[in-house]
Amino acid sequence: MHSFSELSALFEESFNVRHFPEHTKTLYDPAQYILGIGGKRVRPVAVYMANELFSSLDEDSFNAACAIELFHNFSLIHDDIMDKAPLRRGQQTVHEKYGESTALLAGDVMFVQAYEYLSKIKPLYLPKVVALFNKTAKEVCEGQQLDMDFEKKETVSLEEYVEMISLKTSVLLGSSLQTGAILGGAGLGSQQHLYNFGKNIGIAFQVQDDYLDAFGIPEKFGKQIGGDILSNKKTFLLIHTLETANALQKKELSQLMNSNPPDKVERVLQLFKECKADEWATSLKEKYYQTALEHLEALAVQESRKAELKNLAEYLLKRES
Amino acid sequence: MHSFSELSALFEESFNVRHFPEHTKTLYDPAQYILGIGGKRVRPVAVYMANELFSSLDEDSFNAACAIELFHNFSLIHDDIMDKAPLRRGQQTVHEKYGESTALLAGDVMFVQAYEYLSKIKPLYLPKVVALFNKTAKEVCEGQQLDMDFEKKETVSLEEYVEMISLKTSVLLGSSLQTGAILGGAGLGSQQHLYNFGKNIGIAFQVQDDYLDAFGIPEKFGKQIGGDILSNKKTFLLIHTLETANALQKKELSQLMNSNPPDKVERVLQLFKECKADEWATSLKEKYYQTALEHLEALAVQESRKAELKNLAEYLLKRES
Repeated sequence: MHSFSELSALFEESFNVRHFPEHTKTLYDPAQYILGIGGKRVRPVAVYMANELFSSLDEDSFNAACAIELFHNFSLIHDDIMDKAPLRRGQQTVHEKYGESTALLAGDVMFVQAYEYLSKIKPLYLPKVVALFNKTAKEVCEGQQLDMDFEKKETVSLEEYVEMISLKTSVLLGSSLQTGAILGGAGLGSQQHLYNFGKNIGIAFQVQDDYLDAFGIPEKFGKQIGGDILSNKKTFLLIHTLETANALQKKELSQLMNSNPPDKVERVLQLFKECKADEWATSLKEKYYQTALEHLEALAVQESRKAELKNLAEYLLKRES
Repeated sequence: MHSFSELSALFEESFNVRHFPEHTKTLYDPAQYILGIGGKRVRPVAVYMANELFSSLDEDSFNAACAIELFHNFSLIHDDIMDKAPLRRGQQTVHEKYGESTALLAGDVMFVQAYEYLSKIKPLYLPKVVALFNKTAKEVCEGQQLDMDFEKKETVSLEEYVEMISLKTSVLLGSSLQTGAILGGAGLGSQQHLYNFGKNIGIAFQVQDDYLDAFGIPEKFGKQIGGDILSNKKTFLLIHTLETANALQKKELSQLMNSNPPDKVERVLQLFKECKADEWATSLKEKYYQTALEHLEALAVQESRKAELKNLAEYLLKRES
């Protein structure tokens, strides 16, 4: 069993190559660019960790991890185009640096390259891995579409928001773990526990992300505090506040969202606190974390071998306990 | 052996279903929309025709044809976004009807669906079909990128233009035929002859398309005559004219391209004729057509069985002889 940082370094060692031919440079340099600006490589490490629970790492684990990391970066390029985001990981986004059309195509070709890596997996596991990959890829697209739909909707229920978040960000983590398990020869039960462990950690992570956007410490969070509030984003906090506020609070919230006064962030935060959205989010995150742990618990693998997955969860959820 | 229209009807019968789930409708309806506005289904028919040369049609031919048609439509959606095209097959483009972000995602999810169909192909043929599909998909992206690059370039050589056209539009036809051959159990030699037959027909088709844009009969062409001239598109005709014009003609052409006078189309056409670009294009198209026929000739299949492929070529190249 290896630690997160050992596995991350191991993956990086093989992944840190040019994945595309030299010609056509104007297409492949942009695709290579985003791979070079880092990222935590959480998903490839998740493939490795799950695989290591059942067997030792081999070329198939690398090919699958590679495919998932390329897919993830493909979806980031396309999401950034849709969101008109100028920065990604502190660097220019692909469309900002190379133009939208090239970014669109670079994303497409990266997606093909993901399938190229997948297709190298040995025939014994290939059909299962590809079926899971396809299902997940579609779900990620569905999640992104729902996210855009929600921007135009007046109200979004907690249930709808959890579905969107699961699809957009959590299923890929679950799927990475399940892929590793498949390649390790694990049975369906173990695969599903690992999938659900990852999916619930992913949702807990998003609750935390929404929380930190409102209540985080600016220096630690790395993004502008209140960004979601300024853009009226329907986050866990806003949804809960809208669902629990009294008539007066609702009216104030609605006025703030429509008028954008200079003290908007401060006043919305006040309403969040009045409705105890902060406490509620903390316990919601804990609930998903506990569900994740239950799946890890139920996994028929020696307890001591689960330590690294628990570390991964704690790393992602920045838990101090 | 079936005719083009029989195979087209046969394909349409199975293809004319909803390829996507109901939920998320806002994502899948746009993807389904473009499939519903028709198209000639040339590529699926090409898969079928090549397959029929060696064996009878089965579910694998349908799955491969389906994957290729979905890939083709995915690339049309993304190309239309890049080209800001309002119409496709006389109907609103996907991004025009549903917005750019949704069109981008609908394209992505259609691409996943293409791989879903591919993955159903029996293991005996799957690796070869997927490898060819991936290679072709990357080439189509490269072709589109080169096309965009050429818009910004001062001059483009004939060789560069042929490479771009081959990648952007012709390799997919070649690949469709080769896929059918693979699924029919054909040997590598036959596969390659069919691939090259399709690729050369594709290039000849593009020469014809460029020719008709300048010299076509408006009612028959279905598009505005001179569209390429008005947008200074580097076509076969323009490239040849720039390469063969004398100093005076070059100067006039360059002035027309920069100044866009009302009689631009008429005067550029005059220069094309002076440089015999029309005759040259006609013989270039013939050259690619003959090369295609040589590959068909060399194919180790009974002559009488090649008739439908020859009909396909003649249909695409609107040959009256």
